Amino acid sequence: MGTKVSPLAPTVFHHLPALPGVRLAARACGVRYQGRTDVMLMELAPGSTIAGVLTRSLTRSAPVDICRKHLRGGKARAILVNAGNANAFTGKVGLQAAERCLKATAAQFKCKPSEVYLASTGVIGEPLNDARITENLPALARDLKDDAWNDAARAIMTTDTFPKVAYRTAKIGGVEVTINGFAKGSGMIAPDMATMLAFVMTDAKIPAAILQALLKKGADRSFNCITVDSDTSTSDTLLLAATGQGAKHKKPASATDPLLKEFRGALDSLLTDLAVQVVQDGEGAEKLITIDVSGAASVGAARRIGLAIANSPLVKTAIAGEDANWGRIVMAIGKSGEKADRDKVSISIGGVEITRNGQRRPDYDEAPVAAHIKTRDVRIAVDVGVGSGKARVWTCDLTHRYIEINADYRS
Amino acid sequence: MGTKVSPLAPTVFHHLPALPGVRLAARACGVRYQGRTDVMLMELAPGSTIAGVLTRSLTRSAPVDICRKHLRGGKARAILVNAGNANAFTGKVGLQAAERCLKATAAQFKCKPSEVYLASTGVIGEPLNDARITENLPALARDLKDDAWNDAARAIMTTDTFPKVAYRTAKIGGVEVTINGFAKGSGMIAPDMATMLAFVMTDAKIPAAILQALLKKGADRSFNCITVDSDTSTSDTLLLAATGQGAKHKKPASATDPLLKEFRGALDSLLTDLAVQVVQDGEGAEKLITIDVSGAASVGAARRIGLAIANSPLVKTAIAGEDANWGRIVMAIGKSGEKADRDKVSISIGGVEITRNGQRRPDYDEAPVAAHIKTRDVRIAVDVGVGSGKARVWTCDLTHRYIEINADYRS
Repeated sequence: MGTKVSPLAPTVFHHLPALPGVRLAARACGVRYQGRTDVMLMELAPGSTIAGVLTRSLTRSAPVDICRKHLRGGKARAILVNAGNANAFTGKVGLQAAERCLKATAAQFKCKPSEVYLASTGVIGEPLNDARITENLPALARDLKDDAWNDAARAIMTTDTFPKVAYRTAKIGGVEVTINGFAKGSGMIAPDMATMLAFVMTDAKIPAAILQALLKKGADRSFNCITVDSDTSTSDTLLLAATGQGAKHKKPASATDPLLKEFRGALDSLLTDLAVQVVQDGEGAEKLITIDVSGAASVGAARRIGLAIANSPLVKTAIAGEDANWGRIVMAIGKSGEKADRDKVSISIGGVEITRNGQRRPDYDEAPVAAHIKTRDVRIAVDVGVGSGKARVWTCDLTHRYIEINADYRS
Repeated sequence: MGTKVSPLAPTVFHHLPALPGVRLAARACGVRYQGRTDVMLMELAPGSTIAGVLTRSLTRSAPVDICRKHLRGGKARAILVNAGNANAFTGKVGLQAAERCLKATAAQFKCKPSEVYLASTGVIGEPLNDARITENLPALARDLKDDAWNDAARAIMTTDTFPKVAYRTAKIGGVEVTINGFAKGSGMIAPDMATMLAFVMTDAKIPAAILQALLKKGADRSFNCITVDSDTSTSDTLLLAATGQGAKHKKPASATDPLLKEFRGALDSLLTDLAVQVVQDGEGAEKLITIDVSGAASVGAARRIGLAIANSPLVKTAIAGEDANWGRIVMAIGKSGEKADRDKVSISIGGVEITRNGQRRPDYDEAPVAAHIKTRDVRIAVDVGVGSGKARVWTCDLTHRYIEINADYRS
C-alpha cells in the first residue's frame, strides 16, 4: 500500500518555513500502522483564532462533532490528529475516547478542552484505542518544534503516497505574513464541503469570524471542487488558524476589507494548491483531469455539471485508457440534472473544440486530442450554452490501481 | 469484448413463447459491429397499444425524442432498434437519420410514422449510417417470425455478455394472458427512470393510458432501483406494448382495477427479473449485491440511501475484494443526504447484524459475514432508524474487468 509514489506527485518538495506561534511534533504511536508515525500534535500560541469547515456527512466522526462545537468559541491552542482509525460510527465509546484525548491535551497545555481540536482518519467503525495516543502526549509535547511541518504532514497520511504541503506569503497593509498548510487525502474524496484533513496556519492576526468567512469562500472554490471517487468521508475537516504572532499589521475590519485583498488571494491559491495535490494523489491516479465548465445557469450549476463529469466512472476510465471518447462527457452533462442546451453544447479537450452546437464539428481532427490525452495533465472544457455560470473542478482517472488499493484496504 | 459470459448469468435460458400479435426479426446490418446481428425489427398487430418510460438525460438521443412524441398517440405497429450507435448528440443530422428510419418502416408496414418506435444504443456522438438499416428493412420484414425473441434480444446487445429475456403469464378475469420481455444493458446503468433498452409485450388488450400507469409504477420498483456505475445513459428506453391478440378477456377500467391484480404482479415481477439481469451482466460484475433499506423517512429516501450505497466505488470495491468493510456502508449512508439517525443505524450483511444503535455489536463475529461475502449473491440490509420508508436496490461489484472493458471500449 502506498509504496509507489503517485506519478502526479509534485517534483519539487516545498519545505515550509517556520511560522511564529506554531510548533509541531509527530510520533509512531501504533494506533493501527506499524513502523511509521501516525499521530501529529500541533501547538498554537495563546490567543490564536481558528475557523473550520467540516463534513456534512450524517455519519460524521466524533472528532468532527467536537470540532464543530469548539469552533463556536473560535479559539485554539492545540490540534491533535491520528491516522489509521477514523473514530467514526463508534457511538458513545468513540465520543468518550475523543473526550479523553481532549482532556489529556488540555492538561498538557494548561488550556480549556474547548481550545483543543481533534481529527481522526482511517478505518470506520472500529473503536479507537485512545490510550495509545494519550500515553504518547508527553513525549509529543516534549518533541514540539517549529520546523516539523513535513513530519506532521507525513504522520496524517493513510493511503496517500506523498505528503501534501504548500505555503504562501502575502502583505497586509504592507506587512508580510505567511500561510502554511498541509493536507491528506487519497480515497473517499468527494467533499460536500471540505475534504479529508487539511490544516492551514498563518501568523497574521485575524478574528475568528473573519477567518471563517475567508475559509468558507476559499473552500468552495478548492476543496469543494475536487473529487476522486464520489465518496464523501465521515471525517472531512479543514481548519484555518491564525496565531497573530507574526509582524504587527493593521487590524482588518471584515472579510471583504481591502486590507485583506492580497491575503485572500494567497489563501485561495494555497487552498487550491493543497486540494489539487489531494487529487494528484488520488488512489491509483495516473492523470490529473481539470474540467472547466462555462455557460451554466449559475456557479453552482457549473460546479455540479463539472462534478458529474468528474465523478463519471465512464469518463474516468476512458481517460485512463487514453481514449478521446468525448461521447461520455455528453452523457455526464446529460445526467447532471442541470440546465444545458443540448443543441448548443460545445466540448473541448486539450484546447481543441470537438463539438459545437450539439454535434461533432465536421472538421474535427482527433489526432491532437489523442496526443493530448496521453499526457498526465488532461484539460476538458465544456460550455453548456444557457448562462454565464463558470466553475473549475479537478479529478483523476480511474485505473486498475484504484481497485487494487480498495479491494484490500482493510484486510 | 464480451467473449466471456458473466459468472452471474442465469444458468437456465428461458425460451420465450410465441405471443399473438408480435413477430420479430434480427439481422447483421454492419451498423458498427461486424459478424453479428445488430438490428432488431418487431411488428405489432394493428390496434396494439403502447406505453413507455424514457431517460431524463438532457443529452438524450434522437430516438428518445421520437418515442416521447409518438407515445402521446399510444399506438404502435413497429419497433426498430439498432446496436453499435446511440444516435445521441448527433444534432440535426441524427434527427434526419432517425426520421428516414421512421419513414422507411412506416412504408414497409403501411402505417403512420407515429406508430413506429425507435431505439439506438452504442457509441455517442457519431453520425448514424441509417442507410445500413433502411436498406435491410425489406429483408428484415421478410424474415419476421413469431419465435425470434432470442434473436431479437441478442441483436440489441452491446457490451452485454448474455441476452436478457423473461416471461410471465397471468389471468385477467379468468383468461390467461402472456407477457414477454427482453432487455439489454451492461454499462452506463444508473436509470433516472428507465434503464437502457427494454421491450415488454403482452397479448392482453389494455388501453395505452392504463398501460402507461402500470409501467411507470413497475419501473419505479425495478429499473429505477438498479445501478451498475452511476452513469445514466442518453438512450434509456422501456416500452410496453399490448397487442390485444390473445384470448378475449374483460376490459379493465383503470390501472388499479382489481381485474388487473394478477397482471400487475406478473408485470412487476417480469420487470424486476429483467432489471436484475441487467445488473447480473453489469460490466465486470462478479457479484450481485441486493440492498434492502428500511427505517427511512420515505420510500424515495430509502431508494436514495440504497443507491448511495450501491453507487459507492468504495463499497463496490470492498465487495469485489471480499472484504466485509462495513464502515464504507456507514460512509455511504452518511453521504446520501437523506435523514438517518447515526446513533440508531443498524447494518446487516448476509443476515448477520453487525451494528446496532450506531456502533458495532460487542458480540459481532466476522466469520459468517466473511463467508457470505465470498458468495456470488451478497445481501446488505440497512435500517436508518427514522421512519417506515423501505426500498430494495440492486447493483454489482466494481472489478478490474470494469476498467478493462471501459478503458478501451471505443477504440
